[in-house]
Amino acid sequence: MTITQELVRQCLEVLPSKITSLELDAAKNCMIDSIACAYTAYQEKPIEILKSLYLHDATHQGECTLIGYGQSGRAADIALINGTMISLQLFDDNQAEMRGHPSGPLLPAVLAAAEIANASIEEALKAFVIGYEVECRFGTILNPTHYENGWHATCTQGSLAAVAAAGYLLKLTPEQMAYAFGINASQASGVRRNFGTMTMSMHSGIAASNGLKAAQLAKLGFTGDPEIFDGKMSFGDVFAKDWNNDLLKDNLPEWGAPFFIVKPGPTFKLYPCGRPPLFAVDGVLLLKEKFGVQLADVKKIVAEVSFLYPRTLIHTRPVNGLQAKASLEYCIATSLVDERPVLNSFTDEAVTRPAVKELIERIEVVVPPHLSEDIPAVRKAPFDQPVTIHMHLQDGRVITETVPIHKGSPKNPASSVELQNKFKDCLGLYCDERQIEEVLAGMDQPAMKLRDWMKLLQIKNKG
Amino acid sequence: MTITQELVRQCLEVLPSKITSLELDAAKNCMIDSIACAYTAYQEKPIEILKSLYLHDATHQGECTLIGYGQSGRAADIALINGTMISLQLFDDNQAEMRGHPSGPLLPAVLAAAEIANASIEEALKAFVIGYEVECRFGTILNPTHYENGWHATCTQGSLAAVAAAGYLLKLTPEQMAYAFGINASQASGVRRNFGTMTMSMHSGIAASNGLKAAQLAKLGFTGDPEIFDGKMSFGDVFAKDWNNDLLKDNLPEWGAPFFIVKPGPTFKLYPCGRPPLFAVDGVLLLKEKFGVQLADVKKIVAEVSFLYPRTLIHTRPVNGLQAKASLEYCIATSLVDERPVLNSFTDEAVTRPAVKELIERIEVVVPPHLSEDIPAVRKAPFDQPVTIHMHLQDGRVITETVPIHKGSPKNPASSVELQNKFKDCLGLYCDERQIEEVLAGMDQPAMKLRDWMKLLQIKNKG
Repeated sequence: MTITQELVRQCLEVLPSKITSLELDAAKNCMIDSIACAYTAYQEKPIEILKSLYLHDATHQGECTLIGYGQSGRAADIALINGTMISLQLFDDNQAEMRGHPSGPLLPAVLAAAEIANASIEEALKAFVIGYEVECRFGTILNPTHYENGWHATCTQGSLAAVAAAGYLLKLTPEQMAYAFGINASQASGVRRNFGTMTMSMHSGIAASNGLKAAQLAKLGFTGDPEIFDGKMSFGDVFAKDWNNDLLKDNLPEWGAPFFIVKPGPTFKLYPCGRPPLFAVDGVLLLKEKFGVQLADVKKIVAEVSFLYPRTLIHTRPVNGLQAKASLEYCIATSLVDERPVLNSFTDEAVTRPAVKELIERIEVVVPPHLSEDIPAVRKAPFDQPVTIHMHLQDGRVITETVPIHKGSPKNPASSVELQNKFKDCLGLYCDERQIEEVLAGMDQPAMKLRDWMKLLQIKNKG
Repeated sequence: MTITQELVRQCLEVLPSKITSLELDAAKNCMIDSIACAYTAYQEKPIEILKSLYLHDATHQGECTLIGYGQSGRAADIALINGTMISLQLFDDNQAEMRGHPSGPLLPAVLAAAEIANASIEEALKAFVIGYEVECRFGTILNPTHYENGWHATCTQGSLAAVAAAGYLLKLTPEQMAYAFGINASQASGVRRNFGTMTMSMHSGIAASNGLKAAQLAKLGFTGDPEIFDGKMSFGDVFAKDWNNDLLKDNLPEWGAPFFIVKPGPTFKLYPCGRPPLFAVDGVLLLKEKFGVQLADVKKIVAEVSFLYPRTLIHTRPVNGLQAKASLEYCIATSLVDERPVLNSFTDEAVTRPAVKELIERIEVVVPPHLSEDIPAVRKAPFDQPVTIHMHLQDGRVITETVPIHKGSPKNPASSVELQNKFKDCLGLYCDERQIEEVLAGMDQPAMKLRDWMKLLQIKNKG
């Protein structure tokens, strides 16, 4: 059996047989999180551009559904746009070993293929678990040279995940699945130099769309190299330096034992700001919860952070939403002024609120000696260091919380409730509570057709 | 001015100002040749698969036209299928320095963009010249490491050509053009491992489609890295080893001086068989012309070839069309039995013709000492050696012709008449003479709208 054949067997046979409710629940969390993120892209410019190019004929009824918009279209187009929506605000999950964002390129392929195949939510979640395993396992063996060479793993490895998941749902034969991986190799792309542009978020869409297309083409009898992971100039050879195919061969027996989606699992962002401020937000929220602190109780806040915080988060007095997302002071303040930092906390208007501005003046950011540049471990990973919040209260007490790892990381996982709160925050921009509850309830009906569930996502009262 | 800005200036400003009728005529030849090739793919399986996936809604009226089929559809889809059609039979032009096929990935982007922009034939030819320059110049500086690493230059470099040509026709601003190249970098792909599969011919389509999409997106305001040819992890860094951006910077002043499409220019295939037999076909046709030889005059034919011919072209007695294309004996025989080798010479039925079979018995293939494996220069390039045809006639004469370079190569260029003959052969499968003349005449009307010319290509009497 060639390496490619064994990989195909893993995707179509071995991994599906190993999936338990543990993995399905983990996949459900990823799905909830990604759908939430997608809503935050509703009617944003890059999405409207893609829609105008690919779904300009609004009356055309397609086979798959655009999240939120409810509009339908061709599977590959819908996957492209859904993927771009999920990743647009950089609010979607990431996975350290994959070196990228696992759900953005994977979920849209799952959704589209499940709609085409009229599969159930449970089947869709199974496909998600399989795709997730593929992209993360490849992440561990293609890198670091793959990423170092300039490839964006979200796009390249993500396309492999999309092929696997779509191929599973479309019930490809092993031969077709091998062709699909071959076809995909000629479309796999996505470079890091597009970070910070609209194309960066489209990487998720490109991967989803191309992976899905490869599976669709193979299903129709289109051929590609059926041994793309074997021999010279294999997928790994082209996309990573110092590759040899044995890296994959030796890795395959580890797949699904355990599944990456369960261990180590994804990192979720619970708040729509940069990653470094997340630690401080967690600290403030913990203090609020433990001590029942209200805004009026607070006299002063001191945040102890590593040396790189003040050099990176330079917007100590932000004047717009974009600056606020990268402002430690603002993120701390909004955690007290608002229930928690939500999307509406980062509008240009919200930033001008007197209560926030006034509080910011009483926030102090300090770098203690043990978090200074002099400490090698701190210099190596300045944003993986603990953040400590000292809250000076009006009654004279000083309460303190240290956050070693932000909430949402595998070692400090987000709870289902917290993910649902994010979901409610994001959908709440456009949907009423009843609709949000319907969508969440749908996810707990494994036999429900994915296609029917997608209909529940349509924004009725366009905000 | 950055390297990317200078490249954009070349594409939008410098190159267009340098184009003369010499380049336009060369582009016309490429266009005639590619359109001819496209017809040979009419209703072939890979094309029908792509049509079923992307143009399944036959009633949908799109903005661009599928060659031969006449069907219209979305620009990017049409470019994908037109590109695959041109390259399907491996009958399209190639270009040595580009290390790939220049017209397959370029022409479909030109056609689609010209239709969208409602440009004239002359404007389309100008765009073709620009795109051709881009892909060939990149070919000389990205390679050999780019090709050696497993990339198919037709697809990767071809997508750069498609961006440049489409961007020119869609009248992108310099800023949009820079974004388009950035967007394209995240879609550039195509690996050699797919050679020999349907995906290989789709490489032309992928490049055309993605390059066009990048230009369309940029035109609509979508952003990508605007300096993709500058700095670290530039396009060249990602796609070629030992790259430094100065290779491109130093190359840019040479662009268009002369244009690659004129010198060295493309290699055309005049006959629908493998490349090695082309030398022998030329020899037979030259003897027929010079001496007025008829089939009945021929007693015996001796072909002197390099040592690798008999080892490679193993089908000395072919039983089907595919074998016949790689049979030296068959290709020699059909050059005598038919006016010249045409598509109909290579059907499974044609191969069984008694006249051909009888003649093959009187053909002898020999390897003279100076073309043996012992000669280093021959071992290095066995299929770039001269082929000699000795024709023994019934009247006792022995006539001889040596072909050092096959007709269609830059050093032995095909004439316009020969290319038009190929065009007539290919279109003749489905179109009557009058239609063929109309199409050719259209190409000589520079002011004609490309869109109107595309309509002339529709096969009316489906064969």
